[in-house]
This record gives sequence, structure tokens and C-alpha cells, in this order.
Amino acid sequence: MTIFFAELVGTLLLILLGDGVVANVVLKNSKGFGSGWMVITTGWAFAVAVPALIFGSYSGAHFNPALTIALAAIGKVAWGQVPIYLAGQFIGGFLGAALVLIFNYDQFKSTDNKGDKLAVFCTGPAVRNNSLNFICEVIGTFVLVFGILGIGAQNLTNGIGTLFVGFLIWAIGLSLGGTTGYAINPARDLAPRIAHALLPVPDKGDSDWSYAWIPVVAPIVGAVLGAVFYTVFM
Amino acid sequence: MTIFFAELVGTLLLILLGDGVVANVVLKNSKGFGSGWMVITTGWAFAVAVPALIFGSYSGAHFNPALTIALAAIGKVAWGQVPIYLAGQFIGGFLGAALVLIFNYDQFKSTDNKGDKLAVFCTGPAVRNNSLNFICEVIGTFVLVFGILGIGAQNLTNGIGTLFVGFLIWAIGLSLGGTTGYAINPARDLAPRIAHALLPVPDKGDSDWSYAWIPVVAPIVGAVLGAVFYTVFM
Amino acid sequence: MTIFFAELVGTLLLILLGDGVVANVVLKNSKGFGSGWMVITTGWAFAVAVPALIFGSYSGAHFNPALTIALAAIGKVAWGQVPIYLAGQFIGGFLGAALVLIFNYDQFKSTDNKGDKLAVFCTGPAVRNNSLNFICEVIGTFVLVFGILGIGAQNLTNGIGTLFVGFLIWAIGLSLGGTTGYAINPARDLAPRIAHALLPVPDKGDSDWSYAWIPVVAPIVGAVLGAVFYTVFM
Amino acid sequence: MTIFFAELVGTLLLILLGDGVVANVVLKNSKGFGSGWMVITTGWAFAVAVPALIFGSYSGAHFNPALTIALAAIGKVAWGQVPIYLAGQFIGGFLGAALVLIFNYDQFKSTDNKGDKLAVFCTGPAVRNNSLNFICEVIGTFVLVFGILGIGAQNLTNGIGTLFVGFLIWAIGLSLGGTTGYAINPARDLAPRIAHALLPVPDKGDSDWSYAWIPVVAPIVGAVLGAVFYTVFM
Repeated sequence: MTIFFAELVGTLLLILLGDGVVANVVLKNSKGFGSGWMVITTGWAFAVAVPALIFGSYSGAHFNPALTIALAAIGKVAWGQVPIYLAGQFIGGFLGAALVLIFNYDQFKSTDNKGDKLAVFCTGPAVRNNSLNFICEVIGTFVLVFGILGIGAQNLTNGIGTLFVGFLIWAIGLSLGGTTGYAINPARDLAPRIAHALLPVPDKGDSDWSYAWIPVVAPIVGAVLGAVFYTVFM
Repeated sequence: MTIFFAELVGTLLLILLGDGVVANVVLKNSKGFGSGWMVITTGWAFAVAVPALIFGSYSGAHFNPALTIALAAIGKVAWGQVPIYLAGQFIGGFLGAALVLIFNYDQFKSTDNKGDKLAVFCTGPAVRNNSLNFICEVIGTFVLVFGILGIGAQNLTNGIGTLFVGFLIWAIGLSLGGTTGYAINPARDLAPRIAHALLPVPDKGDSDWSYAWIPVVAPIVGAVLGAVFYTVFM
Repeated sequence: MTIFFAELVGTLLLILLGDGVVANVVLKNSKGFGSGWMVITTGWAFAVAVPALIFGSYSGAHFNPALTIALAAIGKVAWGQVPIYLAGQFIGGFLGAALVLIFNYDQFKSTDNKGDKLAVFCTGPAVRNNSLNFICEVIGTFVLVFGILGIGAQNLTNGIGTLFVGFLIWAIGLSLGGTTGYAINPARDLAPRIAHALLPVPDKGDSDWSYAWIPVVAPIVGAVLGAVFYTVFM
Repeated sequence: MTIFFAELVGTLLLILLGDGVVANVVLKNSKGFGSGWMVITTGWAFAVAVPALIFGSYSGAHFNPALTIALAAIGKVAWGQVPIYLAGQFIGGFLGAALVLIFNYDQFKSTDNKGDKLAVFCTGPAVRNNSLNFICEVIGTFVLVFGILGIGAQNLTNGIGTLFVGFLIWAIGLSLGGTTGYAINPARDLAPRIAHALLPVPDKGDSDWSYAWIPVVAPIVGAVLGAVFYTVFM
């Protein structure tokens, strides 16, 4: 399996499970409706950990352009491979979001609030404030990449490293997810946002394009800072 | 211990714990009444993981006809053994459901809603729509079997593979369980449904037979597709 | 450290944490007040798993007379040691309950409902029905002992066996705890009940002695049945 | 990386994630608002476990002056190194709290209750009672240090020891956190309290200095008692 295909299928699974848990919690007529932040953050933690375990040996299981770019910045991924990674991640993210739409089609039809429908696909701020929202996504992704490198340095075997990456995602969601919804990943946010814009989501609103650059740019900044900080100081 | 007996006792335990957590959450006068989706999905995750650990060395711990058939389809189980697996699974599923009925008998008597009583035994759709419900069960079981094969390929030891299978079940419940209740297993759904029909559930309603074929056929389709996809591409 | 002292301190810690989480959820003016079944069952799971890891090498970390007796019944513990185990377990259980009372003394004073105060110490049925309550405790403890023996047979190392025992406790609480509160352990129930009766719990009610024999006798029956079933069939 | 810097960055991360989850739950206009005790205790568990894994090899990952002093008291840390540890812990704690303020600045502005704003930074009692609050923090920290030493004695490898330390933190929060908010760590409490006093928290109240000595002194007492008890008896 090529890196491209591994990143595509892995990111598809990530978004199917990750956007899927949001759909389950925020859309009407879903059995998990209203079950709250614990369900969302646990769902996202496993949405990362399970595919990461399965696809790790094929591509390193980035599923995240910010992580790929940060690893390139510190010389752990060749720059020439970055476009391959990103192509797989964005296509996989789009297809995963499309599956979430099909899967929950009747739930989308049952839900009136257009903001809730968009929230299934991509993140939005609890309080709109470009500079603070940007800082939050920088900090969240800094912790993500610093944590991944720090966990990786332990040379854990037998899947336990992936287990701790899952805990890291869980931690970021619980502790740093409340202000912007912890995109911390351009493909997780932009690809489903494009899906929301292009696909026939029932009675949808706008795709909030004015916010869309923040969960793309800020995670890249945070990821590179986290990787550089780790490399310099640890 | 024979494969038949291992699958029977393991599936019995799976349903005792799995249907048991639903009973705890949906039936009146139970201490977990109304405790929600986090409790249900966590309960089902351990309902799979603990028996899977104990019975893995005897039978592979399928507890799921769709998984058995999918493994046969890719040559990992002999077709001649499939009826043995399925017999153990369905008998164990029926007996597990019978135990859940005895265990929660006063709680069934305390509950008026006939749909809630049926929900303890088997799944039903949040929005009834045969084609979408079918697709949901196909996708859920595809992820289940793809994930099991992917986790298995890591050759994890010391119980960690089973741990990740538990996380996979947790993930499917959290993210893909909201529309149809994630049967993803014909024995988990049909055997308790038969128990609901045959056993003296207090003041019960009908067993919703018009829906019963979906959580039987769709999981088999999804499981075979997942196994074939995994075999071809990974 | 002797077996007696290990069982005493381990059971003390078990009850401090286990009864402690109930106090946190059911007593007024506690920060976890009303946080529900997920908190209670998670708390009890770790209340077992952490002391079990620490004291396992000293005494096997039973903390449960039903488990000790069942292991004696299948020849894994010498009958002559049983009184030593039980003495440590009951004294530890009493002292743990006394610590819970001191720890939450103001919370006990803040709570009016006498049944809630008793519930911190020991279990009671959601629906009072001696035969069904007895059956529930038999089934719960059967699963406990069958599961412990089944996990033990995997020869897991590096603490993973204890991890799965924690998951087993979590599973029993989530799935089989709703009807009687899953005593599944005479020392966990009787020793704190005695503490409730003897110690100056603020404005307490009676200790519900008419129910007290069920969480003593039924767990022993279930544990022995589980151990014998496992030994004969697995 | 020096011990000083490891403790500083590790404690910063601990407080960023730990105080961060409290902010997410108690501040208005945060996506986790009102999500309760399960979210808070899970967040704190990973806030300890993830940094502990990453920084363990540099400094032992204390992040807690009470733990450092207790280890010195039993000869596992040289007294001469204690000031280095404590300096890193307090500076890291202050900086972590400052980051939490920046991260959640709009959420602080959205929240009226001054007590809730203080609760993000440091602990306070559910019922104010100096002697009982002191006892609670002693018991909680006793369990923490006893547990850490007991887990450490198992010589677990591959990150599993850190996993169990995370479970220990989770257990303490669930079971012993309801009365005082489980500071169990002077740097976790005092450093963010100083940050609350010095930094421009929007429309803040007082920093409750009359209580501040308890989560400093009691954890040290409890930690030393736990370490001595463990050393003498185990």
C-alpha cells in the first residue's frame, strides 16, 4: 500500500469516525443526541488511535497536513513526499465527510439548526475572535506535535505508543477543545468544509468561509513551532 | 473446550453484558437509568473485550456470524466450521438474552414503554428508512471487520490486540451507533429478538420483525466487503 | 508484608476509593454530586485495579471473601489461610468506610436523605425482591470470578492482566450493577454496613439489616459456581 | 534537558491541560460547559499521564513539590536537588496558568461568577472547614504517593507504569476529589493562585488567600506520610 493510499484511507476513517461522533451528538433523531463533550472527545480519541495503529506501518499515519509539514520542517519527512501526504489526507477527509453525510442523512433532515449541521463537518469558534481563535489552534497543535514527538521518543512497542497518542488526543479535546473545537488539523477541517459546501446537505447554511483559514494556518504554525521546540530543547 | 462451546459461552457473556448495559440505561428502576450513550458504548466495548480475551485461544472469539462468514470468505476459517460457529453464537445469544430478562425482570415490569423493552434485546432505527438503515449497518460492520483484520496484522501480544478491539467497538458505538444502534452482528440482534418473541417479557409489544432482516443481512454484507477490501488493498 | 496486612490495607484502599466515589456522587455539597453512573462505575473499576496492582504480589489481592472462598474451593488457596484473608478484608473494609465517613463528614451533614447516606456504605436493591436480588448478585459474582480466572489463564504480564481485571469490574458495574448495586463482595458490603451501624454517621437511618445477608451469601454462591464452572469446562 | 527545565515544561503542560479542562467545564461559552465531573477527572488524569511519559526520563516527572519532598524524605531524591525541582514546578505552574488565561480569555469575559473564574486556577472547598479540608488533602496525597511508590515497585515497562499512574490520578479525582477539588500538589494550586492574583483576569474576585495554605501544607504532610508508610510497611 502506498503512502498516498494509506493516508487517504486512514484519513477517511478518521473523519468517518470523528465527524461521525459529532453527528451522533449534535443531530436530532440520533441515539447519542445531547450526550455531550465526553462522548465527542472519546470518539475523536479512538477515531485517531485505531486508524493510527492500522496504518502506522504504511505511512506513519499522519492524517494531518500540519503534522506532515512539521515533520518535514525538522527533517523527518522528505519535502518531496509532502504533496503525496497532503493529497491523500484531503481526498480522504472529503470522502470521509461524504460518508458521514450519507450515514446520517435522515438525521441531517431532522435537524433545523444550520450551525449544528455545519458543526458536524468542521469547527467553529465558541466566541468569534480571530486572534484568540488563532492562538488556541496554535497552542492545541503545538501540544499535539510536541506530544507525538515526545511519545515517539519513548520507543514504546506493542501498540502502547499509539495508545498514548490516543490519550493525547483525548487530553487535547477535553482540555483545549472548548474554545474552537480543536481542529488542530487542516485536513480534518477544510476537507469536510469543502464537502459541506459542495454536497447536498439538506437545508444547509453557509460554510463559514471567513473562519476557514484559521484551522488551516494556525495548526501549521503550531505544529512547526511544536516540532522545532521539541527538536531544540528535548 | 470446543469451538461450539466457546462461541456459545462467549456470546452468552457478550449479550449478558451488552444487552445488560442497555437494560441498565433504558429500563425504569435501574440504578443506571437515563445515564446515556457514554454508558451504553463503554458497556458494549468491555462486553466484547473481556470475553474476547478469555475465549480467543479456544475459537478466535468471533461471537458474530458476520465476522465468521467474512473470515471464511477470505479463507481464514474453513467453510465447514461456519455452521458450528453460528450455532454456538445464536444459542449463546438467546441464552444471554434470557439471562438479561431474568436479571432485570422487575425493571421490565417497572417500564411502560414497549419500545424500550424491545431495545434491551435488539436494535431498531432512530429513523426508519430501509435503505439508509441498511447502509449504516454495512458501513459499521465494514469498519468492524476491516479494523479487526488491521489490528490483527500488528501481531500485538500480551492482550493489547484485544484492548484495541475493545477500543474499535467503543469507537463504532460512539461514532456509528446513533442511527441504527450498531447491531453489526446478526447473533447480537436476531437471537435476542427471538428471545423477546418467545420468552415471557412482562407486557411486551411486538418484536419488530419487519426490521429484523436488516441487522442480519447488512452486517454480513459489510463484513464480507470489509474483509475483501482489507485482503485486496492492505 | 503478611497476607493479613496486605488484604487489610488493600481492602481499606478499595473501600476508601469505592465508597468514596459513591459519596462524591450521592452526597450533597460534593463537587461530583449527581454526576451519575459513569462516574460511579469508573471509580469502582480503578478502586479495584490500582490496589490490585500494588498488592498482587503480597496476597494475590483478593480484597473479597467470596473470591477467597471460591479459590479455596478449587484448591488455589489453602483453606487454612481463608480466615486470615477474611480477617484482613473485613477489618480493612471497616476502616476504609470509617475513612470515607471522616473524609465526607460535612457532606453527610449536608445530606437529608438517609437512604443516600446508607448507599455510600453498602448496597441496596433498586426493587426489593429477595429471590431476584439474590440471583443478580449470584450472576454478577459468577461473572467476576469466571472472568478473573479467565484473565489469569492468559498469563498476561507487565500489569496488563490487572488492567483487564479493572475492565471486568467496569463491565460488571455498567451492565450488571443497575439492579442491586453490584456488591459482588461480602467485605465490600457487610464491613461498611457495620461501620454505618456503629459509627456516628450524622442523622443516619437504619442499616437495612434485613437485606444484609443477600450481598454476603449470594456473592459466595456465585463465586464458587463461577470457579467450579471455569475449572470444569475451560 | 536539565531537571529544572523538564519540571518547568512538564508542569506547564500539566497546568495547561489540567486547569484547561476546568476552564472548559466551568466557564460560559466553552463547548464543554457543564459537562461535569467525568470530563474534569478524565482531563486531569491525562494531564498527568501524557507529560509524565514524556518527561519521566529527564527528571522523574514529579511536577509536584509534595512528591519531590516526600521522595527526598525517604532518600530517593537528594535534598540539594529539591529547590531545583520546586523552582521548575512553580514557574511552570505559573506559566501554565497564564496560558490558560490567554487561551480562555473570552470565556473568562463571558463568565459572571467570580468563584468559577478562581476555580479554573486553584482549588477551593465544597464546604469550608479547615480541619476537614486539611484531612482530605492529606488523605488524597497519601494515596497519591503511596500509589506512585506501589506502582513503581512493579517495575512495569513500556509505558504501562505511567498508564497506571494516570489511572491513579483518575481514581483520586473520582473518589477523593469531591470535597476539596483534589489539589494534592502545592504547585498545582499555589502557582495558578498567584497567577490569578497577579494577572489581568477579567472582572476577577479575590484569590481566597485564607484557604491557600491548606493545599500547600496538607499535600506535603500527606505525601511524606504516604512515602514513610510505604517505606516502613511494604
